[in-house]
Amino acid sequence: MTETKTHLYSPGLVGVIATESSVSDINGEKGILSYRGYSIEELAQKSTFEETSYLLLFGELPNKSELESFTKKVTKHRDLPDDLIKILKSLPKNTRPMDVIQLAVSSLGTFYDLEVSPEKVKTKQYNNDYFINVAAILIGVLGSIVAAWDRIRNDKDPIPSDSTMTYAENFLYMMGFKNITPLMSRIMDATLVLHGEHTINASTFTAMVTSSTLANASQVVASAIGSLSGPLHGGANEKVVAMLEKISSKEKIRPWLDDTLNKKNVVWGMGHREYSVKDPRANILTDMVQELFNERKGGVTDIFDKAIELEKACGEKLAHKGVYPNVDFYSGILYKEMGIPTDIFTPIFAMSRVSGWLAHWIEQILDNKIFRPTQNYVGSEDRPYVVINER
Amino acid sequence: MTETKTHLYSPGLVGVIATESSVSDINGEKGILSYRGYSIEELAQKSTFEETSYLLLFGELPNKSELESFTKKVTKHRDLPDDLIKILKSLPKNTRPMDVIQLAVSSLGTFYDLEVSPEKVKTKQYNNDYFINVAAILIGVLGSIVAAWDRIRNDKDPIPSDSTMTYAENFLYMMGFKNITPLMSRIMDATLVLHGEHTINASTFTAMVTSSTLANASQVVASAIGSLSGPLHGGANEKVVAMLEKISSKEKIRPWLDDTLNKKNVVWGMGHREYSVKDPRANILTDMVQELFNERKGGVTDIFDKAIELEKACGEKLAHKGVYPNVDFYSGILYKEMGIPTDIFTPIFAMSRVSGWLAHWIEQILDNKIFRPTQNYVGSEDRPYVVINER
Repeated sequence: MTETKTHLYSPGLVGVIATESSVSDINGEKGILSYRGYSIEELAQKSTFEETSYLLLFGELPNKSELESFTKKVTKHRDLPDDLIKILKSLPKNTRPMDVIQLAVSSLGTFYDLEVSPEKVKTKQYNNDYFINVAAILIGVLGSIVAAWDRIRNDKDPIPSDSTMTYAENFLYMMGFKNITPLMSRIMDATLVLHGEHTINASTFTAMVTSSTLANASQVVASAIGSLSGPLHGGANEKVVAMLEKISSKEKIRPWLDDTLNKKNVVWGMGHREYSVKDPRANILTDMVQELFNERKGGVTDIFDKAIELEKACGEKLAHKGVYPNVDFYSGILYKEMGIPTDIFTPIFAMSRVSGWLAHWIEQILDNKIFRPTQNYVGSEDRPYVVINER
Repeated sequence: MTETKTHLYSPGLVGVIATESSVSDINGEKGILSYRGYSIEELAQKSTFEETSYLLLFGELPNKSELESFTKKVTKHRDLPDDLIKILKSLPKNTRPMDVIQLAVSSLGTFYDLEVSPEKVKTKQYNNDYFINVAAILIGVLGSIVAAWDRIRNDKDPIPSDSTMTYAENFLYMMGFKNITPLMSRIMDATLVLHGEHTINASTFTAMVTSSTLANASQVVASAIGSLSGPLHGGANEKVVAMLEKISSKEKIRPWLDDTLNKKNVVWGMGHREYSVKDPRANILTDMVQELFNERKGGVTDIFDKAIELEKACGEKLAHKGVYPNVDFYSGILYKEMGIPTDIFTPIFAMSRVSGWLAHWIEQILDNKIFRPTQNYVGSEDRPYVVINER
């Protein structure tokens, strides 16, 4: 098939096959997302972030000893090297958390052996033992970097990881939360599961292209973080919260929506290119938001009421266009209600998606061809150089 | 054309049109590379890095006042913020230079206003004034970061930029070179011109995908640096030097080549997917290497003799396959002979290519659609979750 030359140009490569992959699948009409064949609903309810990461990376649910061994490695790497903490402490306190995690990840090649050998790729010497070790590093450190930065920027010491806790619970613990309920840990865990992978989105595609040059896994993840930091990709759940906070009350939702639609402005968290029904991840989150607000009777904001009202109003006005809440619509509300700072939402997305990025990195390493698409050249032809005084 | 759905899969997207672009063009059969319609030969001989960057970014050669204004901005940004130097000083001394520049660039959003507004993109409010300012920052700081890092890792203080010098000369000056001849500056300048742009290579493609999420220009460049750091992309000129250094003498070249070809190992710096004749950039470099070795009669190594011999031997054995030296074959030798550390070669590539990356960033901002290709899903279908004890 490699002889094919298509002369048609599809902006954004929409509809163009960029890879063969067995990591995840979306049926947008039915609203189904599956990781390695398992529906996201089952995984969000029954699995954990550690287990789902293993599944995404290696294709099968781990047995007990595989899961224990992988979890142990990830847990070990939740302890950051002192020199990495030193880098974080050198940063101006107003450095954006997404920039912080990108730069911290960029440095990881100094602390861990992450180099990829072209010879070993060519002769197919890399196997799951290697991939497990690398993935455990990247997954392990990322949550700790996010939490450490949130402490450091607030002039507090980073909290050391507690190895008795799950990844999700430990993240909340390292963020400094004191009264972590089982529900909070479960929600944190489930949102990490939900954001782990979503076929060939922009950040995953960035990871694939970077992988194809055989860059270090740390450079692959740092590149993907750059892509995820864009407001059209990872930043949407922050925007949902900001949008809902700007609307003064539940009663103002409908006039606000009319005005927004008239002006053709964006309703953040509504609609997703891949789904014509409600994003299956949003369905799961709706229930969780309800549970969390029940647990905290009289939560600090009325943001959930406004969200429900906005979903209802959009449902009446936009459902015929296939515009329904996506995963970003409720995940921001959940994090906000739990007390996580708004600018940490996208870093949490990265903590989760790193599993998906690395699953695609593995696919790339196992069957690599460097990305080198072509272009329609629409510029000037042959021009002679003109000296500056004659321009 | 956006309705097209191709069902053919081309690994690496070879032959697939990923964009409409007017930045550069390659005619691989004739060995022609042009930036905005100007041949690379003319630009390498007659232009400078500053002027060529302007051309790449904005499509036309600048007039005198445009060039002065742009150069002034770039020159100003060669002075790094103190807090950025502080970050560099916090790094372990063995941090790889490519990792250093990726992480330093990741931090730039803290020091400069680099945010991209989705609203302004949508309503086409960004113009050349904005692009000039952003590009001047990224181009200006990058060389200074590379030079500062090379000083800091050697326990020396960074040398402040000298605003009377060109970008190329100043880079050598900040690296600590004492006797910079006009030829050395000219060679540095020309190699920066030569590496500025090369259509849709992997790092440029990474920059485009990251741009399409409307990430900051700093994140765009940091992502592209990650991609460039891969040994299949930016690292090749380092490998050329290492390869030539391993061969003990000119006389050993031919036996070494026979052995390498028999084992089907890589001859670094030979062949390029885009050219079936000698890479036009390699032609220009060959002459420069000759000039430099003439200037320095009895240079410190016999690496050039070995390179010439290897080109000749490859010419006899491989020319029928269209395998000729590419740009990496001689650029590493030039840098090496000038006394630049091997692991700074790829960072210099980045200092140059940043102009091309940003030219594509501008194209993306002016007509954006987020990259979201599709995949051939080849994985498992519908599987029920199995509890861990039953796996």
